[in-house]
Amino acid sequence: MNATQVRLARRPHGEPDDDTFAFTHDEVPDPADGQLLLRVRYLSLDPYMRGRMSDAPSYAAPVEVGDVLVGGTVCEVLASRHPDYHPGETVLSYSGWQTHALSDGTGLRRLDPSVAPVTTALGVLGMPGFTAYAGLLEIGRPRPGETVVVAAATGPVGSAVGQIAQARGARAVGIAGGPRKCRALLEEFGFDAAVDHRSETFADDLAAATPDGIDVYFENVGGPVAAAVFRRLNLYARVPVCGLVATYNATSAPEGPDRLPGFMGLVLRRSLTVRGFIQDEFTASHGRDFLRDMPGWVADGSVRYREDVVEGLESAPEAFRGMLAGRSFGKVIVRVAE
Amino acid sequence: MNATQVRLARRPHGEPDDDTFAFTHDEVPDPADGQLLLRVRYLSLDPYMRGRMSDAPSYAAPVEVGDVLVGGTVCEVLASRHPDYHPGETVLSYSGWQTHALSDGTGLRRLDPSVAPVTTALGVLGMPGFTAYAGLLEIGRPRPGETVVVAAATGPVGSAVGQIAQARGARAVGIAGGPRKCRALLEEFGFDAAVDHRSETFADDLAAATPDGIDVYFENVGGPVAAAVFRRLNLYARVPVCGLVATYNATSAPEGPDRLPGFMGLVLRRSLTVRGFIQDEFTASHGRDFLRDMPGWVADGSVRYREDVVEGLESAPEAFRGMLAGRSFGKVIVRVAE
Repeated sequence: MNATQVRLARRPHGEPDDDTFAFTHDEVPDPADGQLLLRVRYLSLDPYMRGRMSDAPSYAAPVEVGDVLVGGTVCEVLASRHPDYHPGETVLSYSGWQTHALSDGTGLRRLDPSVAPVTTALGVLGMPGFTAYAGLLEIGRPRPGETVVVAAATGPVGSAVGQIAQARGARAVGIAGGPRKCRALLEEFGFDAAVDHRSETFADDLAAATPDGIDVYFENVGGPVAAAVFRRLNLYARVPVCGLVATYNATSAPEGPDRLPGFMGLVLRRSLTVRGFIQDEFTASHGRDFLRDMPGWVADGSVRYREDVVEGLESAPEAFRGMLAGRSFGKVIVRVAE
Repeated sequence: MNATQVRLARRPHGEPDDDTFAFTHDEVPDPADGQLLLRVRYLSLDPYMRGRMSDAPSYAAPVEVGDVLVGGTVCEVLASRHPDYHPGETVLSYSGWQTHALSDGTGLRRLDPSVAPVTTALGVLGMPGFTAYAGLLEIGRPRPGETVVVAAATGPVGSAVGQIAQARGARAVGIAGGPRKCRALLEEFGFDAAVDHRSETFADDLAAATPDGIDVYFENVGGPVAAAVFRRLNLYARVPVCGLVATYNATSAPEGPDRLPGFMGLVLRRSLTVRGFIQDEFTASHGRDFLRDMPGWVADGSVRYREDVVEGLESAPEAFRGMLAGRSFGKVIVRVAE
């Protein structure tokens, strides 16, 4: 039986292209004593992976050229010489872009398919959901009646942000690209308003959707969308920054004018709080609360989610490019095996 | 007897010039029942006044053209028909750029010259000192051993920031313009290190003075100094933003490249907290603590201050320009009358 891996062939300059990825194949390994053999069923694709492909300074070490690309996965235990795991069990792991992996059990979490679909461990009940939960509640701190705005709002982080905001009594305004996604924001996710950033009247539409200004902007895209939002931030508004996907493929600083002095002036005049974060900062402080709250909200339908499942590891590079460009629709998951 | 006022003659475009200010004269008024007549002894000059001269959106309403310019003052009660105040008393008031003012007592605070020189109510024991205290302790939250950097460090806010940081066990690094101010940072104010932003080796000097990076940058200047500091901010660094004096005379956004995306990337990768504030936000929460702590620190010499006193109301416009341009040296106070 053959195993397949997707490796970083060359660091991308701008958008990752076919030269970025290399598919390799070898024999499926046997677990040594204390190890398990995992078969990857689902691979999560997330924007942060673009950062790992670069060697620019970041919060995490880059993937080395030639190494298997990293990523969260849902796996089946195929064989085990580890006392805690047995063949047939399903686990959450960080096995990366490949069909099989060995593990010594570190960082694994057993998943119970009877509680929730196992793919939710990569989305609404996993890292993206926790990013939304911790960032919104700890940094955004929405109060009843306040207006919360989030972009990429049909994505796994954005959709959870809006719905958690509503659970706290705030008004949720989602920004997404195109009428189909905007309709989903209203009809599937129950946002209070949806604004299409591809519309020529985007700035006016945003103003109309936020008549009382914006109290929390959950930043996960950056770029021109963020610029339009900033202008509508209220006094004491909070801006949790968990991602800047619109800028990840940038190869140089954009042309002027230099907007940084104007932005800092806004921070000063409106007493804004701008706070970058990576979700694992809050695991110790908010992880238990998340595991208490979120599964219930998903089960009772107060937090809905959407998955964009692509078939086969060979589809991963194109799906990854599409996600960065806003062509995906929901949490992007690669079905590597049934 | 004549009274003199300095009025906003025309909104400045860029640096305030002679067309900005108009001196007017009239009779000293008599207090009505319930009023006091104040003689202004000292007028505080502060960078925020530049914002009040413009009609751009800000946190405070602008001074109207033709009105007396606003400002904190130390005054003598000349005559009183108010039950709580008597001639000869000294009060802190907000009488603005003029020699005399009527008051109904609102917002006055009686000063005791035997406790501290009355001018300190405009500086280290007043609004600038409280800006340093509240912004540093509430937003900056320096911990023992951390590195705190502040620019305009011989000014009333900067000098207090560094010394309060040291009182909390942090290392204080001051940035100032020219060797004379840098020497004062080390010899008068006892900073751990001083860096001259006019030096051609500024960025290297800053790196040498902050070998462990920067945990708190107390932002009161903006511009190129801030850009150099940002690059050295550590993971989880805090940036209280209380002023951007380097940009107050700007007439347009500076040329590119656009540094905002790069800055937001830094906020994300280093999990920075950037928080604008105006000191009065913290009056209720920190005002009592300030009045408990700061006078003692000043009395025992652990917080020192420097005043740059100019003589006569006629000197105020030039002193104000000089302060914005970094030519002042310490808290700028106009001695309006003895």
